[in-house]
Amino acid sequence: MFDLNVYIKEKKQLINDALLNIIDMDSTDRVTRAMLHSLMAGGKRLRPILCLAATEAVGGDPANSVCPACALEMIHTYSLIHDDLPAIDDDRLRRGKPTCHVAFDEATAILAGDALLTLAFQVLSSPPSINDLSPLKLLEVIHIISRAAGYQGMIEGQMQDISFEGKQLGLEQLKGLHKLKTGTLIEASIRTGAVLGDGSTQQIEQLGEYAKHIGLAFQVRDDILNVEGDPEVMGKAAGTDIDRGKNTFPALIGMEKSKAFAKKLVSDALQVLENFDTKADPLRAIASYIVDRKK
Amino acid sequence: MFDLNVYIKEKKQLINDALLNIIDMDSTDRVTRAMLHSLMAGGKRLRPILCLAATEAVGGDPANSVCPACALEMIHTYSLIHDDLPAIDDDRLRRGKPTCHVAFDEATAILAGDALLTLAFQVLSSPPSINDLSPLKLLEVIHIISRAAGYQGMIEGQMQDISFEGKQLGLEQLKGLHKLKTGTLIEASIRTGAVLGDGSTQQIEQLGEYAKHIGLAFQVRDDILNVEGDPEVMGKAAGTDIDRGKNTFPALIGMEKSKAFAKKLVSDALQVLENFDTKADPLRAIASYIVDRKK
Repeated sequence: MFDLNVYIKEKKQLINDALLNIIDMDSTDRVTRAMLHSLMAGGKRLRPILCLAATEAVGGDPANSVCPACALEMIHTYSLIHDDLPAIDDDRLRRGKPTCHVAFDEATAILAGDALLTLAFQVLSSPPSINDLSPLKLLEVIHIISRAAGYQGMIEGQMQDISFEGKQLGLEQLKGLHKLKTGTLIEASIRTGAVLGDGSTQQIEQLGEYAKHIGLAFQVRDDILNVEGDPEVMGKAAGTDIDRGKNTFPALIGMEKSKAFAKKLVSDALQVLENFDTKADPLRAIASYIVDRKK
Repeated sequence: MFDLNVYIKEKKQLINDALLNIIDMDSTDRVTRAMLHSLMAGGKRLRPILCLAATEAVGGDPANSVCPACALEMIHTYSLIHDDLPAIDDDRLRRGKPTCHVAFDEATAILAGDALLTLAFQVLSSPPSINDLSPLKLLEVIHIISRAAGYQGMIEGQMQDISFEGKQLGLEQLKGLHKLKTGTLIEASIRTGAVLGDGSTQQIEQLGEYAKHIGLAFQVRDDILNVEGDPEVMGKAAGTDIDRGKNTFPALIGMEKSKAFAKKLVSDALQVLENFDTKADPLRAIASYIVDRKK
């Protein structure tokens, strides 16, 4: 019987060890300390775990995906650091700890975000990544990730999120926003894992579909937790979306319909995995976890 | 007789055309407009031109280096956008135009910088780059550039620049700061060109040495211009370094010694090029231009 808790714990350890192998834990450099402050703040490691699980789902060796998975976590963390800045979301607490610009200062937080984004590409092009992977495959992965994280992906989602504050959106607009803001990097994580695991074109496309569903489900769940989550469990304040006039699924379609929508997305995600064998069980379990999580 | 003005004009055109081929000039998206605002603000294109000139110097086809050269300009521009932010240098004017956060707003400027940095890696891993280049060579270039731009290179230089404000530095510290802040990306530009032009290991190392000299000369000249340059010609205010208590070469060793130091660096750079034939004439002319420039 597959145990998701054990799986997540093992993969988290793998990722955390690899991250600390890349960045010197004992560094006294200010930027490095700021990078580590946010990178090692107890994140869920969802994107790297999805990457490793996708490699496994197509029958690949997840060891080959560890460095690219770390790069994905760096990009996710950079995006959080910059989103939290006073000029953007002005958040002071993240994962129960002061955000980067609160623990250090704004200038350092801007630079630490820039540094994590840049380091992601350094890691993706480093010999430890290259050893067992074809250069062409790594270039493909760099392309997938940079495209997803860029101005037509995650960054455009963040820009829309800011521009739309206080404006009433339709359901399709809200879905479109989250597809960009959260969905693209989650999909890129899974595609990266599938490409590195030598998945077939069909497998990669199917896992891309799976990713679209769980990416949106993840955001719907986030919106739900922002209303009824426990701040102590989440390590961040609740109710902040309403305060800011953010467009959320509960505000737009109501709490019950939001919950039903999240469940539907997960069931769609599971359906896409029907052609996969038990090696995709971690991806199946993660899909269910996403709508049940408390933080 | 080699004419640097004609050469720079031609290469600038090549780079500008390629940049507008990558980013949609007519886009109405806010982040895209902010990226273009800073990217097309009339920069010198020093880094991409050095990249192309290095490819030529080792006998390669500069056409292969155009996309990577654009990526270098994107990274340079992102670093300027973030440096100009209120939390860092708080500059309102750059190249005679309002800086990105003044023309747009802080949030947009942060995102536009992030987007240019990310796009650089998208371009480096794109099919147009890949067509005539080996994937392994492109990975090497991505590694050279990300390392130079990262937390142990350009970003550390920026952090030091902030931390050292108002403190009295020694000459070696000041050199070290500029080596990181400006030198690493200039060196990466030249190494990138040399690698893509299939230069020998010895040629790449020699051009790396050349780059170290002209990178520092460039900064010394910048410091000199900040004291005695014409704000109208430069498109930015003069005297700002003194106002901020920045450590500069003129402040530390005096104006005359600074000018002599810049000349010495250029003559060292030219000496390194002795083993190169006339294909390195652009690099020779650029070295001299760097200490004569008025902006």
